[in-house]
Amino acid sequence: MKIGIFDSGIGGLTVFKEISKALPSFEIVYLGDTARLPYGIKSKRTIDHYSIKNIDFLKSLDCEIIVIACNTASSYSARLLKKKYKIPIFDVISSGVTAALRLNPKNLGVIGTNSTISSESYIRTIKRKNPKVKVHSKACPIFVPIIEQGLVNQKYYDKIIYENLKFFTNKKIDSLILGCTHYPLIKKNIQSCVGGDVVLIDSASEVAGSLREHLLKHHGNEFKKPDKKRSIFLTDKSEYFQSVVGKIFRKLDFKIKLVDLK
Amino acid sequence: MKIGIFDSGIGGLTVFKEISKALPSFEIVYLGDTARLPYGIKSKRTIDHYSIKNIDFLKSLDCEIIVIACNTASSYSARLLKKKYKIPIFDVISSGVTAALRLNPKNLGVIGTNSTISSESYIRTIKRKNPKVKVHSKACPIFVPIIEQGLVNQKYYDKIIYENLKFFTNKKIDSLILGCTHYPLIKKNIQSCVGGDVVLIDSASEVAGSLREHLLKHHGNEFKKPDKKRSIFLTDKSEYFQSVVGKIFRKLDFKIKLVDLK
Repeated sequence: MKIGIFDSGIGGLTVFKEISKALPSFEIVYLGDTARLPYGIKSKRTIDHYSIKNIDFLKSLDCEIIVIACNTASSYSARLLKKKYKIPIFDVISSGVTAALRLNPKNLGVIGTNSTISSESYIRTIKRKNPKVKVHSKACPIFVPIIEQGLVNQKYYDKIIYENLKFFTNKKIDSLILGCTHYPLIKKNIQSCVGGDVVLIDSASEVAGSLREHLLKHHGNEFKKPDKKRSIFLTDKSEYFQSVVGKIFRKLDFKIKLVDLK
Repeated sequence: MKIGIFDSGIGGLTVFKEISKALPSFEIVYLGDTARLPYGIKSKRTIDHYSIKNIDFLKSLDCEIIVIACNTASSYSARLLKKKYKIPIFDVISSGVTAALRLNPKNLGVIGTNSTISSESYIRTIKRKNPKVKVHSKACPIFVPIIEQGLVNQKYYDKIIYENLKFFTNKKIDSLILGCTHYPLIKKNIQSCVGGDVVLIDSASEVAGSLREHLLKHHGNEFKKPDKKRSIFLTDKSEYFQSVVGKIFRKLDFKIKLVDLK
């Protein structure tokens, strides 16, 4: 049983890491579409097209289960993809929302890219499951370049993170969904801005949990097998991406392979 | 005589505007590769591939002269493209450098994206023409999201622009090349950071000048013709891009058309 994970770039490696940890005996392939990232500012039409290309590649490597690690692709394309493909597809939004609602929140915050927030996919998914929850959502698109460029601890950037999150000050949120795979990487900064009482929901560990549950139920025998291989493919391997991977993940024990999806 | 301009996205519309103004009697087609932007963090291999796709599209519309408005594509791919195609190709780097050297500088500053600066294409082009000039270059990758997200006049962003340009404080530069099509849009902020004495070289108007010179020499008769059509094509037309175009260009009198280069 091979698991395929895709993301617009390298932020989804947070999801890859969690799933790797939770499921050592499963083979895992990660695909980051670095040649065409970011997805968060592009249209549904374009994201649908890219997501299909990504899954087709993972399927060509015999992945039998897919995880959409990218929030934008989950927002725009998950429904279409689940219909199109006959294999199980997990996405970060469904898992994140399930985890958030388990906490029985009254006021739930969501942050994400422009596309994720303006698609209102989080609001729709939350309201479908519990119409009583008040949802307060805000796009924080500057966080991705700040994280990718390794600027978080440089002068003024902490203030910018705070300015973006000030929106939640009077909303009395009890939990906050980190609706972009990059955000867990600045969890500490976000926590100190919104206050220690607010529970941060990190979809990376949530989707790993949902997937584990599914596999325990349907492929329980595979848990006893020895540790399996991990592979990382990127569609572009510039110096920049390699340095970002280095900045984000101190220990990355896999060789990154280049794949052409053009 | 139809002129084709391409850029990774919408920053190159600064080049389009200058060329439009300088050459009203020429038909002009602009192509912004918004589906795959940004180029500034991607590899030469990927930028070469995208640039070829872009020119093939412009050629399919009968463009007989090409302007590479994107600094990254000019840095990485101009040489390859000029060899591959039999039509005249102008790029922002050659024009920008020619203009800068005309001022006879001793210390010349260059700012650009990561790829433009790390490719050292500006340094090479300058040194080839005048090895005596000292070149001081710095990547300022955070400027593009700041400009695109319309954050320039919001709290702390002026300070971040200043922090990036502090590098030039003791370099005694006499002029500064704005090596990214987005940067002319924050010209005032940059000028106030580096001081009023430093001449800012805006490659948009420089490439328009070089092109006009070439056309006067080879197609002088076409200058007397009536005003011609302008067209703008984008490879992705999300809400975000339309709002950015609106933020950057208050009056844009052309309908934006979508084209699929996948």
